[in-house]
Amino acid sequence: MARHYLDHASTTPLRPEARAAMADWDEHGVTADPGRVHTEGRIVRVALEEAREQVAGLFGVRPRQVVLTSGATESVNAAVWGVVAGYPGGQDGGPGPAPVACAAVEHSAVREATARHGGLVEIEVDGVGRIHPAAVADALDRSLATHGRPPVLVHCQAANHEVGTTQDVAAVVALCRERGVPVHVDAVAVAGHLPVDVAGSGADLVSVSSHKLGGPVGVGALILRRGLRIDPLLVGGEQERGRRAGLENVVGAIGFGAAADALTGPGRLAGEAAAARRWTDELLTAALEVDGITPYGDTVDRVPHIVCLGITGVEAEPVLLGLDQAGVAAHSGSSCSSESLEPSPVLEAMGVDGERSLRLSVGWSTTDDDVGAFTAAFPRVVGRLRDLAR
Amino acid sequence: MARHYLDHASTTPLRPEARAAMADWDEHGVTADPGRVHTEGRIVRVALEEAREQVAGLFGVRPRQVVLTSGATESVNAAVWGVVAGYPGGQDGGPGPAPVACAAVEHSAVREATARHGGLVEIEVDGVGRIHPAAVADALDRSLATHGRPPVLVHCQAANHEVGTTQDVAAVVALCRERGVPVHVDAVAVAGHLPVDVAGSGADLVSVSSHKLGGPVGVGALILRRGLRIDPLLVGGEQERGRRAGLENVVGAIGFGAAADALTGPGRLAGEAAAARRWTDELLTAALEVDGITPYGDTVDRVPHIVCLGITGVEAEPVLLGLDQAGVAAHSGSSCSSESLEPSPVLEAMGVDGERSLRLSVGWSTTDDDVGAFTAAFPRVVGRLRDLAR
Repeated sequence: MARHYLDHASTTPLRPEARAAMADWDEHGVTADPGRVHTEGRIVRVALEEAREQVAGLFGVRPRQVVLTSGATESVNAAVWGVVAGYPGGQDGGPGPAPVACAAVEHSAVREATARHGGLVEIEVDGVGRIHPAAVADALDRSLATHGRPPVLVHCQAANHEVGTTQDVAAVVALCRERGVPVHVDAVAVAGHLPVDVAGSGADLVSVSSHKLGGPVGVGALILRRGLRIDPLLVGGEQERGRRAGLENVVGAIGFGAAADALTGPGRLAGEAAAARRWTDELLTAALEVDGITPYGDTVDRVPHIVCLGITGVEAEPVLLGLDQAGVAAHSGSSCSSESLEPSPVLEAMGVDGERSLRLSVGWSTTDDDVGAFTAAFPRVVGRLRDLAR
Repeated sequence: MARHYLDHASTTPLRPEARAAMADWDEHGVTADPGRVHTEGRIVRVALEEAREQVAGLFGVRPRQVVLTSGATESVNAAVWGVVAGYPGGQDGGPGPAPVACAAVEHSAVREATARHGGLVEIEVDGVGRIHPAAVADALDRSLATHGRPPVLVHCQAANHEVGTTQDVAAVVALCRERGVPVHVDAVAVAGHLPVDVAGSGADLVSVSSHKLGGPVGVGALILRRGLRIDPLLVGGEQERGRRAGLENVVGAIGFGAAADALTGPGRLAGEAAAARRWTDELLTAALEVDGITPYGDTVDRVPHIVCLGITGVEAEPVLLGLDQAGVAAHSGSSCSSESLEPSPVLEAMGVDGERSLRLSVGWSTTDDDVGAFTAAFPRVVGRLRDLAR
């Protein structure tokens, strides 16, 4: 049976450009530690730095601002560690944990790293999961009242990973800048799907992933504002200018760079975004023709490749299994509640049913057939489950 | 000009078995998050768990004891965090940092992670870099005297990464077990070169790397004693049974598994070890024919693929560059003092000159020609440099 993968927001296939670059390196490259003085080491160093330039190019930053990591989870953990450890009350000891402001719609990596290293100050969100600047201002005030000081860090995701709602990062950064508070932006859901102008946004730290934009898994980046120095999470080597220890994943970086470079080509990102928007609009329209379906998140101001639906009266898991039997791979709940289908904290923070959601996401390899398969199967799957429940 | 890579201890080329397994997955596998309930997710889960079994097989443990990481640096940092964070005086707060016993010959990742999270208690080593059980006992006593309690963790590398000296891990573990102190073993220099029997050794935590045994870079493992639970370093997802958050590097794990599986085949590891021993003995013998060359480390009880030499009167860097011009890639100093050639702390702890060392290391792809290229070039390179210095 033909398969139709509509779970690109979890991970998207390797782009042909990334595969070709990695295969080319495998065939013509050499094996060495790029920190070595021998010829092999210097060849690898050049390849690594070219890849870094390609990644930097997609995000409008200088190569030295890019710290390559093993993926966005590490980037996020490193961002929180790096900022919080530098403040009194952080890892260095002080009167209670350093306050960090964070909305409940942030990814579990952001939430959990924050809760571990900092004193969590909640930022309220609205019914579509949006972080309003006024809510951030309120969190800053509450931090002063409760902790006696402003947060040492504010998180503002670029877009929500589950419902797709985009955030007004520039406004949040402007507000925080005024109060002298650095901002970390989880840009994983946006990178490769909408332009990310790190320098223009004024953000201090930005986390991105390779495999969510068509590069290989196992590599990502933490992008730092020019001049920002942070304490590394992984210690034991001077790699990445002393900001991340461990032998560099060179072939991973080459694939990440090639994927980023492909997306930097004229019209490419905009073209893919337009196609994704068309497909997700189509998915949404078809789904809403079924009774008892509610769109979650902002259906207009969102990343082009993600839509999320609430399904009245039917649990998420049987819907996923029914769709799977029809050849359609989709997802429900937070994209990192791996090995379990717990109620989504993102949806609960928005005040909607966190147990009956369906997330559909498209990508560079999506076809009209994939979308058609869903629109054909969805009414049947939901109808049958509702019949069974009667 | 033909190149002769004698820096396998830094990183060794991908084994054909690993390349084939990864290519096969790329061609016939699917893209998905292995935590998903859809068909694609379940296919990826199976592949990931098969890879984990292969890794577990090489180290004589059950698959669930294997926590896949982004590499040994992460494994080491996670081991130290995981144990130290669980003790009073660790990350949870307490009267001063929790004591951790560690020799100066441990890898910089072990040293730096320990210094960051714990109160470092030195373990003395002898002139070949060996950690004697008596020195560990002495460190345990000093910890009691200085910190008022035994260490919460003892490090004992399986072999030294720079000079190759193997350690008596079983004796150190037995001593620590008697005193109720867990042991972390950095087995990176040994894994794939000598048998590593994790269960038999009684070690509590063992760090290994994929790329040093012919798997891909960007993946490694932290192996835990059966039943040991530790606090994860990277948070934000339930992957790896809640012990390491972040999407699993599936293709990396497949390559790591295939390399491990190849080495598990009958006679393979022993055969490679015998060849490596023959080559490094030959390198050592040839080098010692030159005046003013001293072997560093234990030339008998060592890993088969590493030898280290002291070169009187000549700095390390010009020797490396001279060898490089002759087509030979070698290394000096600690294998992770990337981008700098500082005096090696390992050699300084052994009481030898840390600025004039040369490390030669062979691997699965080494040939007699590689060894011959060194033996032909070395006397010339050293002779010329000494002439210049006169």
